[in-house]
This record gives sequence, structure tokens and C-alpha cells, in this order.
Amino acid sequence: MTVGVIGLGAMGRGMAASLRRGGEPPHVFDVRADAVQDFAREGGTPCMSAADLARACDVVISVVVNAAQTEDLLFGAGGVAKAMQRGAVFVMCSTVDPKFSIALESRLEAAGLLYLDAPISGGAAKAAAGEITMMTAGKPAAYAKCEAFLEKMAAKVYRLGDRAGPGSTVKIVNQLLAGVHIAAAAEAMALGIRAGVRPEDVYEVITHSAGNSWMFENRMAHVLAGDYTPLSAVDIFVKDLGIVLDTARASKFPLPLAATAHQMFMQASSAGHGGEDDAAVIKVFPGIELPKKRA
Amino acid sequence: MTVGVIGLGAMGRGMAASLRRGGEPPHVFDVRADAVQDFAREGGTPCMSAADLARACDVVISVVVNAAQTEDLLFGAGGVAKAMQRGAVFVMCSTVDPKFSIALESRLEAAGLLYLDAPISGGAAKAAAGEITMMTAGKPAAYAKCEAFLEKMAAKVYRLGDRAGPGSTVKIVNQLLAGVHIAAAAEAMALGIRAGVRPEDVYEVITHSAGNSWMFENRMAHVLAGDYTPLSAVDIFVKDLGIVLDTARASKFPLPLAATAHQMFMQASSAGHGGEDDAAVIKVFPGIELPKKRA
Repeated sequence: MTVGVIGLGAMGRGMAASLRRGGEPPHVFDVRADAVQDFAREGGTPCMSAADLARACDVVISVVVNAAQTEDLLFGAGGVAKAMQRGAVFVMCSTVDPKFSIALESRLEAAGLLYLDAPISGGAAKAAAGEITMMTAGKPAAYAKCEAFLEKMAAKVYRLGDRAGPGSTVKIVNQLLAGVHIAAAAEAMALGIRAGVRPEDVYEVITHSAGNSWMFENRMAHVLAGDYTPLSAVDIFVKDLGIVLDTARASKFPLPLAATAHQMFMQASSAGHGGEDDAAVIKVFPGIELPKKRA
Repeated sequence: MTVGVIGLGAMGRGMAASLRRGGEPPHVFDVRADAVQDFAREGGTPCMSAADLARACDVVISVVVNAAQTEDLLFGAGGVAKAMQRGAVFVMCSTVDPKFSIALESRLEAAGLLYLDAPISGGAAKAAAGEITMMTAGKPAAYAKCEAFLEKMAAKVYRLGDRAGPGSTVKIVNQLLAGVHIAAAAEAMALGIRAGVRPEDVYEVITHSAGNSWMFENRMAHVLAGDYTPLSAVDIFVKDLGIVLDTARASKFPLPLAATAHQMFMQASSAGHGGEDDAAVIKVFPGIELPKKRA
């Protein structure tokens, strides 16, 4: 069984390295040729195109940015669906509308291919350590072919159904919460600063109280440090909360908090902070002085 | 030094019991005479009125519902400010607008009394165990008189300033986050159910992902169990987010997420769920079937 990884960004590179460390050096492809060469120096097989990789692999793991890139990769310029061997499995790790993922399963099935709905979570550090979370759903035949590889990349592989859809849905639910929690953390910290409390005191008390969230603890540390170097940028949540809202709108389902948080991220982006760390959403609040970057 | 507790509700009763267990059986008063008698059966001194308690105590701990009750207790029918001995300290544990707390310190100072801004957090179980969190601020003289008692009631006493204000402000910040997180948890769980994912799967994945919050983990367990027996009711957050918004409005500060969450809690209350557990805010979402109560 041969495995390949398409997309060597922050997540894909770590996942490919985890496979290599686990004794399965993967075929790799990225539109940036230097990223491919960099990776292959320590093992693995560099490919000249996505289609080349697809021809060589039984399991194709796609870690591209969004649904549009996935579509292009499989059925457009990438030509992956045509190049893959019958019975091979395409593992889709991007954050997409669940309906897109459900349709992909059918479209690939029609081409004699297997499919796994497999969004990921955890960030670059966990990807490098082989400790991401995967939210997966798909047919038993798809799992049978790829699960040994998944275990090498992930601390936890959630199996949420025997058809595509639930993996992408739970990922969407997670992004809703993550986005709202970052914006809420910013709003709460801004109120505390406005009222004259030391930001360090707000952080210390909240992280030990019922108002805490994973995101408050993680992102408000960036605000205290005055450091908005992007680990995950404001524009990622403009995109991800956009997908969340599109998904709900398709079934006319209201999401009042996600809609409000989305506006806050777009406000931050319009003000010129789109490429900064998502904690910079706190900059939408006027009339407060944020901690300066430590020298 | 004699200590008294006014207000034997879910929090006050536990705090009074913690003082007793710590070797400082308190004077107690509540408008419900039976609550006073119940408590005093195992130790402590029952009082016939708040003023009686105030005359007898060096430290008066107030655990009433809100600012209006505090005002009435001190300067209205309760007559506590007039009854307290000069140099005694009033410990204010309610969730109130920080400006009210700051003004109280001055008003009591004018009467020769000390004051501690000391909102509490943690719920009835932690109160009973002597493990609440206290968010405090006040003059060193006030701390000197009451801190030995605080330690017997709390796992953690945060000291946030040497004048009143920061204690109530940080409590307001915590309530903002708590309220938004409960409403966001409901919104996210509702979206997952709408999209056809098992609620247990949403809970399992989210509580192990970056979308988690203390409130998601705690309150969505009530939704899974279909049990809306009120531990803390919807109407508490109608009140507390109202205080949060009033506080911010006084300095014309925008709180888009808190305002949205407040509307959701009011929608739930108007629909008849005000007395149910605050997780019942999920009932504002139409077109989904929530888990039934287990038999």
C-alpha cells in the first residue's frame, strides 16, 4: 500500500512527516516545488504533479485549503480523479460544506473510487507531532484501506458514520464554537480593559473560572504578549465562519452568534488586520489601550 | 471577631456552613425564617433581623441576589449600615454593576464602615465544599479584618485592587463569557442535530477539541440527558447579561456577542423556559428534535 499527501502547508507537512516517522514515507506534492524538495530531502517520494502522485498511490490524502481547491485538484487542472487507480481512496481533510463532501463521495464512487470525509483539527504543532484530531466518516471499505495511515498522523480518529457527511458537519460545529469563542474572548478582555482592570488579572481569573474556553486561554495569551504574529489568521475565520453560515443557510437555520462573530472578523479584516493572528479581532473595539509587544 | 452571613440561598448556605466547619460558626439571617432555623440547628447563631446580625458582627457577609436587594439591606428596610459597628466590614458577594460597588465603598466609608467588593463564582456544590472563587478588591484595612474568614469559604481569593471595583468588573467579564458560551454551545449543538449528527458524537468530539469551553462541557451534558431541572436558570442570565450590557452602555462600549446572547436568553424566557436550566436556551432553535429525558 502506497500513501501520498497533497498539500504541504502547515498541517500537510506535519502529517506527511508523521507518516515518514511511522515507517511509511509518503509520496508528496505541492504547487510550491521547493516545499516538495525540502520535504523529500529526509525521505519520501517527490512528485512533479498531483496526477503523478495519484497514479502511484493507493491512498491519497488531500490537505488543501478549501472546497474550490479540492474541486480543482480532483476534477479540474489537478486531474486526480482521472489519475487514481480504481479502488484507491481519497482522504479529504479540508474544512468544507458537508453537502460538498457528501456529493464528493458519490462522484468518486461513480469513478470507481473510495472516499473518506476526514477534516482535521489541532494546529501545526500537533500535526508535526502526529497528534491531530480527525473527524471522519465513510464506508467501511474506505476505512479498511486507509486507517493504518490515519493512526500514524492522529492522536484520535473519530469515526462518526458509514457515509460521508458527519465528519465535515462536526468540523463545522467545531469552527462555529472556535470562532465565536475567540471573538467572545476579545469582547470580554476589551470590556475588562475598558473598565480599568489589568489584562493579566482578567486572564488569571477567567482561566480559573467557569467563563474559560480553550480559545480564551490560548488566544488571549497573544493579546497579553501584544504579539499578533499569525499562527492562524483573522481571514481564516472570515472564511470558516462563512462556510458555517452558508451550511446553515442552505437549510434556513439561524445562527445568531456565528453571524455576529463573522461580522466582527470581517470588521477586523476590513480595518487591515486580516493577515494578523485571529486574536487581533480585539482591535475592532475602540477606546481601549492594548498591551504593547514586549521588547 | 464575629462573622455573620446574610442570605442563605444556594451559595450563602454553603458559605455559612464552610465557616462553621472551619471553626467560625456564623450569625445567620435570611428573610425565610425556616432557612435560618434549619441552619442554626447544627451550630451558628440565628438572628431575627439583618440589623440584629449587623449589630453583633465585625464582618457582615452579604450573599443576596442583586444590587437592589443590597441597597435595601444596607440603607432601606434592612437598616444594616446604621446597625453596623464603626470599623466593621461589609463583604458584598452579589453580581452588580461595578459602579454600584465603587459607590458603596464611599457611602459606607462616610458611615465609618469598611467595605470589600467580593463577587463569588463556583455554584452551590463548591460553596458547600468551601471551594468557591472570590473576585475581590478593597482597602488593606478591609482585608485585614475579613481575610481569615474568606479563606475558610474559598479555594481561591483573587485580590484585584486596593479600592472597590475590579472584583465586580472581573465578575461581569466572567458572566459575559459564561452567558455567551452557554448560548454558543446551544447554537452549535443545534446545528449539529439539524445536520443529522448524533448529539453524543458532537459532545464527544467537541469536548476534546479547540471548540471546547467549560460551559459547553457542563451544560450540553444537560441537553444530552434531556434534563432541564434548573441548576442555574435561564432567567439568571437574562439578569446577568443585562447587568453586563448596562455596565458597558454606561461608557458607550459595544458588546455585540453579549447583546446577541442576551436576546437568545430573553427569547427562551418569553417562550416559557425562564425557570428551566439555562441549557434550555437551545429550545429557541426551531426544526430540531432534542434528546428526550431518560426514564
